[in-house]
Amino acid sequence: MRIAIDTMGGDAGPAAAVQGAAAAVLARPELQADLFGPGDRLSDELKNLPRHLAAAGSHLSVHHAPSLIRQDQRPTDALRRGGDTSMAMMLKHVATQGAVAGVSAGNTGALMALARRELGTVADIPRPAICTAIPTRGDGRCYLLDLGANVDVSAKRLVDFARMGEVMARHVDGIAAPRVALLNVGSEGTKGSNAVREADALLAEVGALNYIGFVEGDGIFAGSADVVVCDGFVGNAVLKASEGLARMLIERVQATFDSHWSSRLVGMLARPALRRLKSELDPVRYNGASLLGLDGIVIKSHGSADATGFSYAVLRAAQEVSRDLPARLALELGGRN
Amino acid sequence: MRIAIDTMGGDAGPAAAVQGAAAAVLARPELQADLFGPGDRLSDELKNLPRHLAAAGSHLSVHHAPSLIRQDQRPTDALRRGGDTSMAMMLKHVATQGAVAGVSAGNTGALMALARRELGTVADIPRPAICTAIPTRGDGRCYLLDLGANVDVSAKRLVDFARMGEVMARHVDGIAAPRVALLNVGSEGTKGSNAVREADALLAEVGALNYIGFVEGDGIFAGSADVVVCDGFVGNAVLKASEGLARMLIERVQATFDSHWSSRLVGMLARPALRRLKSELDPVRYNGASLLGLDGIVIKSHGSADATGFSYAVLRAAQEVSRDLPARLALELGGRN
Repeated sequence: MRIAIDTMGGDAGPAAAVQGAAAAVLARPELQADLFGPGDRLSDELKNLPRHLAAAGSHLSVHHAPSLIRQDQRPTDALRRGGDTSMAMMLKHVATQGAVAGVSAGNTGALMALARRELGTVADIPRPAICTAIPTRGDGRCYLLDLGANVDVSAKRLVDFARMGEVMARHVDGIAAPRVALLNVGSEGTKGSNAVREADALLAEVGALNYIGFVEGDGIFAGSADVVVCDGFVGNAVLKASEGLARMLIERVQATFDSHWSSRLVGMLARPALRRLKSELDPVRYNGASLLGLDGIVIKSHGSADATGFSYAVLRAAQEVSRDLPARLALELGGRN
Repeated sequence: MRIAIDTMGGDAGPAAAVQGAAAAVLARPELQADLFGPGDRLSDELKNLPRHLAAAGSHLSVHHAPSLIRQDQRPTDALRRGGDTSMAMMLKHVATQGAVAGVSAGNTGALMALARRELGTVADIPRPAICTAIPTRGDGRCYLLDLGANVDVSAKRLVDFARMGEVMARHVDGIAAPRVALLNVGSEGTKGSNAVREADALLAEVGALNYIGFVEGDGIFAGSADVVVCDGFVGNAVLKASEGLARMLIERVQATFDSHWSSRLVGMLARPALRRLKSELDPVRYNGASLLGLDGIVIKSHGSADATGFSYAVLRAAQEVSRDLPARLALELGGRN
């Protein structure tokens, strides 16, 4: 199973992507990773792989891409002039069936635009949604979508998101009848935006869907749904705010331990536990996000993901390939209109 | 300074409100609290005040209200039939200048509707916004609004929120030139909803405002702005999700300590520090939220606030009274059209 990797998207150069790909192929030896980026730099990275990853070398191959998409580059510009970049060449490799999935930690807007052009979408989905798994209480997880690709969406698009998220949870995670919910404001006072109320009525009519109605923001982490659907503006705000809050909380836990002499010892003893938590609690950085609705598999890794975070994104791609996600989406959403 | 208290709004009966009011008047002895609720129950609560609050008795007086607004009651129903409830009588007391501010932990929609009818709004604000202070990194705070009173809002309303939040931060918190930001999705890919982009252009034209442009969700907790403005749907989702995440994180920190024999001792030693954190990190439960834009002062306490949480809401009301917030809003927003 061959995965194409854009190594030049992350904030800290290609090392995290190359080492992440190496860790992934060691974890799943049926994987091959095709690395896109400047040939010389990638060869150097491969030569200097840390000892525990060195055995991955035979599963990694370098594909020279002279240029890269910048984080601030506009999607339209990426479409026009991005042809020789690691991101575009990686996607073209997937489109021409050189690989079965692609992974990038780069500019989300450019990735969305290029992936849509190279791969197209399934079942008349006009534009993919971004979707990631959020950790919930009781060690569960919940798919949240859309995370920013689609703002000001209509009720009909919210229904698309619900159906795509449901297919993902059912086929990729093996949940028999995923509980699907619409994110809404408290039932007190207002009853939500027009699009959400209309989507609620539409979802109640979709026969095969285990639609459980509205959840509020805290319901995402409560584990009360397997798929939570919202406008991309809302999902992006919720996800990024959660990221910021998690970072602040971990800092404060650490600071609390460090600031009192009586707990300084406790703090030292607690450090390994805190380190474990830190990685658990940063869902964005430690899971990949799927571009759901593409006729192909593309995973967005977090821009500041380290090698471990990037390896999860590669393994996520492999998992979606195993479950044949785009074909499932095409089949189940095909009859929606 | 006399504050009117609806004692029947909270999830757990009037004890938290009565004891919270008692704690507040002990902290600020110039306060008097007029307690609204069933006379017999409130007299019992006063007789049975915990010893450390007993000295508050002379600052508390009972105002009999036979009925109450239920959590699931619709605002229209509260307007029509709520006349003899503790919430409506408390607000009428404020409107007739029996008290200078009101506090309730009850049904937000009903509180908004009744407060608007009894007190009206300032400077042609069509509908108040809900606003609370969020803790940020580096021990700062940031006002977030709207938190759910106004969904699907226009750019003009976002500008109102910005101006109201700015007046609050300047006059109540004494910040000379509060940094005001608009919540938006990542600059990558999309540039936000139509209303947000339009509001951005309008805010850049407001001369006296220290408008710093867009922040993403993580910017709320990063301390990069003093006021962050968004649609009520988005703000509500962000706030409730943050509440859910904070609760999950605290549980996990505790569970991490409890689950390994080597860290069980650490966990026991860490318990007081965790307890301190828990209260710090639950902004909603531990601060009141202001109904900003009313021609009067009404603070919403969290429905599940304990006595400490409720006392903060009462003290928040007193602080807004001291700074003459509604008059400031009327003056500064009056010339806005």
